[in-house]
Amino acid sequence: MPLTTRIEAAITQAILSGQGKVAPPRLAEALAYATAPGGARIRPTICMSVALACGDDRPRLTDAAATALELIHCASLVHDDLPCFDDAATRRGKPSVHRAFSEPLAVLTGDSLIIMAFEVLARVSEDDPQRTAQMLLTLAKRSGMPFGICAGQGWESEAKIDLSAYHQAKTGALFIAATQMGAIAAGQEAEPWFELGARIGEAFQVADDLRDALYDEETLGKPAGQDDLHGRPNAVTELGVQGAVSRLKDILGGAIASIPSCPGEAQLAQMVRAYAERLTPVMPARQAI
Amino acid sequence: MPLTTRIEAAITQAILSGQGKVAPPRLAEALAYATAPGGARIRPTICMSVALACGDDRPRLTDAAATALELIHCASLVHDDLPCFDDAATRRGKPSVHRAFSEPLAVLTGDSLIIMAFEVLARVSEDDPQRTAQMLLTLAKRSGMPFGICAGQGWESEAKIDLSAYHQAKTGALFIAATQMGAIAAGQEAEPWFELGARIGEAFQVADDLRDALYDEETLGKPAGQDDLHGRPNAVTELGVQGAVSRLKDILGGAIASIPSCPGEAQLAQMVRAYAERLTPVMPARQAI
Repeated sequence: MPLTTRIEAAITQAILSGQGKVAPPRLAEALAYATAPGGARIRPTICMSVALACGDDRPRLTDAAATALELIHCASLVHDDLPCFDDAATRRGKPSVHRAFSEPLAVLTGDSLIIMAFEVLARVSEDDPQRTAQMLLTLAKRSGMPFGICAGQGWESEAKIDLSAYHQAKTGALFIAATQMGAIAAGQEAEPWFELGARIGEAFQVADDLRDALYDEETLGKPAGQDDLHGRPNAVTELGVQGAVSRLKDILGGAIASIPSCPGEAQLAQMVRAYAERLTPVMPARQAI
Repeated sequence: MPLTTRIEAAITQAILSGQGKVAPPRLAEALAYATAPGGARIRPTICMSVALACGDDRPRLTDAAATALELIHCASLVHDDLPCFDDAATRRGKPSVHRAFSEPLAVLTGDSLIIMAFEVLARVSEDDPQRTAQMLLTLAKRSGMPFGICAGQGWESEAKIDLSAYHQAKTGALFIAATQMGAIAAGQEAEPWFELGARIGEAFQVADDLRDALYDEETLGKPAGQDDLHGRPNAVTELGVQGAVSRLKDILGGAIASIPSCPGEAQLAQMVRAYAERLTPVMPARQAI
């Protein structure tokens, strides 16, 4: 089964289970709306690729890990789009959840998706309680306070930002969770996988900064220039376009070098290289350089 | 150790751990603000009382269950108070979180507390993986979609409300989680404890409806008349004050009768009777009848 099919099947199954049979219909619809059609499913893809590279001996755990990561990611997008944060009218090329449904339903959609992420993991506990507990702790650590994406967003409410803590929480956290949960799902230690996740996360942030600076709203599928608008730290502002592009290449090289020894090491390196291709801005960036 | 001391210690420990050492300071402060000083800590008290009645042979599991319940409850209060829901200026006699901090920080506080609830449970998994997994699943079911408090709130966005599903999700869910998680923490089956939780939840909702109809903002510590304002179902509107008071007594009688056989059955019945005393509206209600 191709990775994308496996990921979509697992996410769809989780959403159907969350929708139930007697749930409030609009909130049930919003859960599906917020999670499909998905973006690139990058976090689940990384998680599943690491698990496969490590043998994937408990596929149900891998599926649960990949799904939980995407649910948390989608929840964060729904809440980040709210009027009190980015006030984004569009996301993935369609109206944001609070525009399509309502602000209360957007808050509840995010809350429900967060809860569902942990529920999906708890459901596979019977298959392997120890790995499941580790995955739960890893996901919680990288989602909440003090190290997770909530902390990352929280830094944006501070007059003085701890840049290192901010970047790791905001941009790195779910990528670190992705590599570590993939490793745990396949019975490996989490710690050696920290660096790969952190570096991929850093690369995506620099790429995102480049796209935010170079592309328009239509190409992005969401409002452009948001970092400038909200005064957030941005690699292009710090290094210029050319500096940011060469930074991106360095980071991806480091990511490949950091891959722990495992049966699927070569394929994993290939995956990171493929992301490097996709991440490096095309046309407008090259014109701009 | 008195129950309240034990509950406060467990909650304080969880919040300190969530605040960490390098977290964004205002969000860290908001976590503490949203959870202390607490209200009556009713859900953790019920959970711990059930665990004690069943022998409390794994106190760390009981503490985690009680804490997780209160964290979810506090998260729901923070999000319910947001401008897009109740737009409440006060909560527990002080400014609501979004008024004291900001709307973004209130969204993040709720999100972080939800995540922390699952993290607290996952941390005790090593003590007893099977009970922990059951507690995680019970908490998720009664918090999220399709049966939990998120679903309950979601019904309020519907033109046509399924009243039975609404009441069980909105008012019963966390009380059902409280009795069931208390039982699970002490190694008992969850199912026989469903009815006690559901009935206590129902009683609290009727008592809340009575207070909402009879008391003013100062006595309540939060805005009064919210149900009328938001057109939500309310026992006083349906049955009148006297009808609601006698309904409350029936429910609590049923709650006591439903207590499963266990070593601490008599004390549990005593606890429910004590709640009955506290729940039955004083002065203004008796004047009104």
